[in-house]
Amino acid sequence: MKALVYTGPEQLSYLDVPPPTVGEGDHLVRVCCVGICGSDMHAYLGHDDRRPAPLILGHEVAGVIEGGPRDGERVTVNPLVTCGTCPACREGYDNLCPKRQIISMPPREGGFAEFLAIPGTNLVKVPDTVSLSQAALAEPIACGWHTVRRSLAVLYGAHNRALVLGGGAIGLGAALSLKAQGIDDVTIVEPNPARRTYLIDVCSQTVLETAPENGLFDLVIDGVGYTSTRAAASACVRPGGVIGHIGLGEDQGGLDIRRMTLQEVTFVGTYTYTAEDFRQTAHAIFEQRLGALDWTDHRSLADGGGAFEDIRNGAVAEPKILLVPTAAPERN
Amino acid sequence: MKALVYTGPEQLSYLDVPPPTVGEGDHLVRVCCVGICGSDMHAYLGHDDRRPAPLILGHEVAGVIEGGPRDGERVTVNPLVTCGTCPACREGYDNLCPKRQIISMPPREGGFAEFLAIPGTNLVKVPDTVSLSQAALAEPIACGWHTVRRSLAVLYGAHNRALVLGGGAIGLGAALSLKAQGIDDVTIVEPNPARRTYLIDVCSQTVLETAPENGLFDLVIDGVGYTSTRAAASACVRPGGVIGHIGLGEDQGGLDIRRMTLQEVTFVGTYTYTAEDFRQTAHAIFEQRLGALDWTDHRSLADGGGAFEDIRNGAVAEPKILLVPTAAPERN
Repeated sequence: MKALVYTGPEQLSYLDVPPPTVGEGDHLVRVCCVGICGSDMHAYLGHDDRRPAPLILGHEVAGVIEGGPRDGERVTVNPLVTCGTCPACREGYDNLCPKRQIISMPPREGGFAEFLAIPGTNLVKVPDTVSLSQAALAEPIACGWHTVRRSLAVLYGAHNRALVLGGGAIGLGAALSLKAQGIDDVTIVEPNPARRTYLIDVCSQTVLETAPENGLFDLVIDGVGYTSTRAAASACVRPGGVIGHIGLGEDQGGLDIRRMTLQEVTFVGTYTYTAEDFRQTAHAIFEQRLGALDWTDHRSLADGGGAFEDIRNGAVAEPKILLVPTAAPERN
Repeated sequence: MKALVYTGPEQLSYLDVPPPTVGEGDHLVRVCCVGICGSDMHAYLGHDDRRPAPLILGHEVAGVIEGGPRDGERVTVNPLVTCGTCPACREGYDNLCPKRQIISMPPREGGFAEFLAIPGTNLVKVPDTVSLSQAALAEPIACGWHTVRRSLAVLYGAHNRALVLGGGAIGLGAALSLKAQGIDDVTIVEPNPARRTYLIDVCSQTVLETAPENGLFDLVIDGVGYTSTRAAASACVRPGGVIGHIGLGEDQGGLDIRRMTLQEVTFVGTYTYTAEDFRQTAHAIFEQRLGALDWTDHRSLADGGGAFEDIRNGAVAEPKILLVPTAAPERN
């Protein structure tokens, strides 16, 4: 099959590779749309020890099951594979399973390819009324959905105003999840002017260039995770408020811990989503509770390297680029 | 009256000063025991902008009401004065009242004196079976009580093992509060060997010299708040665990935010206690659920300067020094 293979720092090659091995319990999925995530970019730049070359990246997949009892079923893919038997899995926080695997990280290849092998329990059926482009957004939006759910669970007092740092798919997904979970007053901060205009004009979001350091937001979601965004988050959250942290930009620093202590701010570290979060997000998409989900740009998988370069150069207004294999039966 | 007055960095003077003005709603309390807190030390060293000289420090007070309808009542003092009408006060997190005041911070003088003026609602009656030395520990222990309550409220999964960083009154109070709130397996980390021996021999605690970086503790309480203790806290908390943060040692740094994100660690900033926490702590003391509370050293208020120097030099094994005015009607 054809695949876009990460062959070393800043190198992506469109190659013929053997098709994936379909293990017991796995289904073969013909990939139709696969999103480029910030973590794919991180790996492409050679900054992620967990993703050594050569490797097929990509973990935001929607497609069609090929063969077997569910042949032809349109599905969106939960890329997180967990053991199902440990305390974390049994008690509903399976994203912390010590044996967790994610496609695009060894030993599992990712979705920048024509086919993907994945356990059937990771596949959520997509109704005919929903495009696979929309369905492929379940994964990035589920990250924000999970962060919002976890953050609201520990927030006390007012639940009115939220700020989201970063207007990529993670940040926009968090903003949409906030509204779907009952927070109406949501502001996004996005420094890239083209992205900002897109979010306002196409996505009908409230967007600022920089964060107001006013200490007025009940909840701040940091979808970026840089020192500067954490500094902004800890300045603009209200006393007793919550910082929901998704980003992995920089490993340390930025939080004003003196203010967080004196003003009782809670920081909630979050990573991915539980299987239940993924299902809830997919169903929110299916029920049109997350908006039109038309904020994607489609590129050919064969030209994936160019898409990475465009993202790196800040030249992409759309929050998400989806790569589409040439032979995909559905391209939208 | 006599008072120990902070007159400038590293200067404490035992002086004659005017007695406090008793405002409407205030009671006059004759101070019998008043603890020295780390924040008093911080102010004494000139490091706390909120406590400018000249000022009477001290906020851990037990004593006897002098005059008025409650004359002669033995009391412990909640030093946090709040407005009672704002949303924070009405909804039970009055420690975040925007108008909060604390004795020992302008405009309120502290308790290193013969008398203190304080609203009657801040006074909790002490039963005859409890000494005022024990009652004066309500304030430092309430800090840990509050942190434990807030941290347990957001912890999911196992609630078995806790680590407390720092074996002063804050850390020991947190350890005792953990046990009173149902966590049996509690370990304290204390680098000072004399303090460590005291905690083991007198207080029957499990104490280590350094934190094990094992990622196994469900809950870690940082009662110190230095870069190094936060680094230890974020290394030894389990995936999905909670760091309860009390300390104000250093303003920034130390947290391994990458690990906290990938492993979903929650950081709970906490400051002081609500009025309800203070009452719960006082009643836990009265019901002997916090142990013998005999880990105090008594010094004369007139010699308070020497006590500060001893603490600064690490020469005090007891977790708490209580200062006793010469004319106190109860000295124990």
